[in-house]
Amino acid sequence: MWLDRRLMDLIGTELPIVQAPMAGANGSALALAVSEAGGLGSLPCAMLDAVKARAEIGVIRQRTSKPINVNFFCHTPPKPDPARDAAWKARLRGYYVALGLDPDAATPAGIRVPFDTTMCDVVEEMKPEVVSFHFGLPAPALLTRVKAAGCVVLSSATTVAEARWLVDNGCDAIIAQGYEAGGHRGFFLTDDITAQPGTFALLPQVADAVKVPVIAAGGIGDGRGIAAAFALGAAGVQVGTAYLFTPESLITDMHRARLRAAGDDQTVLTNVISGGPARGLMTRFMRETGPMSETAPAFPTAGGPLAPLKAKAESAGSSDFSSLWAGQAAALGREVGAGELTRQLAKDAQQRLQALGANARG
Amino acid sequence: MWLDRRLMDLIGTELPIVQAPMAGANGSALALAVSEAGGLGSLPCAMLDAVKARAEIGVIRQRTSKPINVNFFCHTPPKPDPARDAAWKARLRGYYVALGLDPDAATPAGIRVPFDTTMCDVVEEMKPEVVSFHFGLPAPALLTRVKAAGCVVLSSATTVAEARWLVDNGCDAIIAQGYEAGGHRGFFLTDDITAQPGTFALLPQVADAVKVPVIAAGGIGDGRGIAAAFALGAAGVQVGTAYLFTPESLITDMHRARLRAAGDDQTVLTNVISGGPARGLMTRFMRETGPMSETAPAFPTAGGPLAPLKAKAESAGSSDFSSLWAGQAAALGREVGAGELTRQLAKDAQQRLQALGANARG
Repeated sequence: MWLDRRLMDLIGTELPIVQAPMAGANGSALALAVSEAGGLGSLPCAMLDAVKARAEIGVIRQRTSKPINVNFFCHTPPKPDPARDAAWKARLRGYYVALGLDPDAATPAGIRVPFDTTMCDVVEEMKPEVVSFHFGLPAPALLTRVKAAGCVVLSSATTVAEARWLVDNGCDAIIAQGYEAGGHRGFFLTDDITAQPGTFALLPQVADAVKVPVIAAGGIGDGRGIAAAFALGAAGVQVGTAYLFTPESLITDMHRARLRAAGDDQTVLTNVISGGPARGLMTRFMRETGPMSETAPAFPTAGGPLAPLKAKAESAGSSDFSSLWAGQAAALGREVGAGELTRQLAKDAQQRLQALGANARG
Repeated sequence: MWLDRRLMDLIGTELPIVQAPMAGANGSALALAVSEAGGLGSLPCAMLDAVKARAEIGVIRQRTSKPINVNFFCHTPPKPDPARDAAWKARLRGYYVALGLDPDAATPAGIRVPFDTTMCDVVEEMKPEVVSFHFGLPAPALLTRVKAAGCVVLSSATTVAEARWLVDNGCDAIIAQGYEAGGHRGFFLTDDITAQPGTFALLPQVADAVKVPVIAAGGIGDGRGIAAAFALGAAGVQVGTAYLFTPESLITDMHRARLRAAGDDQTVLTNVISGGPARGLMTRFMRETGPMSETAPAFPTAGGPLAPLKAKAESAGSSDFSSLWAGQAAALGREVGAGELTRQLAKDAQQRLQALGANARG
């Protein structure tokens, strides 16, 4: 049914569709629905502790025997930079006061944690068929343990150089993350957002550069996108924003409303939410502080002092300080169940490829 | 042979491939070779005067009876801003001195001119089958004359809103210019480079928004890209950078050498060459002055004072001040003749679509 079956053969799924792990926006329910439908459901663990991660994976394992993916960030925590932290808190002070919060109270250090030995214990115990990483790969000793547990290892590349590095360092398949993608840029060999290639340019160049299967990510919202990804050399796709529309996603009603109204030109890359560049819909905070700010501390530190503002504003019905992650193809989203969406995406892609092929033969 | 034949039917070509007009980098030879091969060859006139444009079109007309495209910029010249011009000249002063040029000598006002009545006379006289515009459309009176001459009218949209505007204002087909594209962003309703969609996201959204044929531009360098563009809803493609590699292109040997070595992450958007954001390979001048600069005067004024620096440096074998335009898929380029490239692109796309379709039916 598909020109390139290498990814499906590698990860054991019926369909070449990976649901993008979206930290804070999806839990077991979404992953379960996608895996049951034949795709690869993904549980993001970057904002979970080990207890919660184990419980969520357990829920999925209880309800399906199909392959699942568990996702971790593996950034190197930045060196402490008290001066920059203080400047950032000073920048946020007015917002704290306006929302009736104490600007001098302690704030969390950053709400996204990298993969560590504790999480690696969870992986060894739960043995997900696939483990995907963002921001490179963990230290070799940890990666060796993950692979010894039998997990297929995926990670994101935003450039050809990153794709080559990932393969050289043990990655089994590459997620080619184009500029269009929502959420955090997965880059780790560069931090230059001005030179990041779009999916259309990145995909064939990565496919030419590596021998492992390539999963296209960024701008894929319907069957046309999946067909196009295969045309460009992909063996699979990773779809994120389209799954935010499903009832299984955990986003707020405010985020959902903004997604429904999203157009092609309404997302930007911003570093003021976490410190690392990520694509989302514009908010008041992004507009007033960035969207890219040199004051924001390094990833993930900037997110700590923002957390109280986000919580307080959201409780009052405002998304001024929220992360409304979305890719550039958000407008293609439809509000259907995650299982139905998965099956429909595959079916639409097949039909599109059939129509294109039939005409090509004339 | 192609799922969507609307563009070919509209413009009268055998293949759905438009050679991107590249001002300064292509003349009649490239356009002629592409049109003769069955694509749509394009003559860029933004840097020609009417006498030269008429002569170049005449050369093509003499040698082929196939459809051709003649391209014009239709920007609104900016209001004079002597203070900004002076600041820009001050910024360039050190370079003038270093190259032995007189920093106080008069410089051209800008070397890219918009479509006007004189050029419209040329169009009426030469009657190219297609006229394409960049930066919107010319004034209604001029556009009416172009259409009355029987020319199909194309223009570039970088967003869905621009695509809708172009159709509402008389455009017969839309060039959807993704973020990946080399050369000048064609935007005219926005100047925000941070929200420009990539080809993968832009194309299906434009195809959904307008009823006219959509031509994909940006990141298309081989048959895979053409197949993908059709998958996403395009009725044709516009290919630029790949044609820069052909012997028919007019680029310098220095530009050619840089293109041969280009990777996926080596182009950026810069406004220091002309004042308007355009994608190209990094140069010393771009690195030291930008790549985006708030000092650079509005398009096309910034280009005037740069011209003497470019000429002097190039005569000494340096591309420090050159415009090395390239898209993000430059690495896909091959050094073959423009006619052969055109035929090969179409053939590769057909084979790719056939293979994808055959497996989809499997």
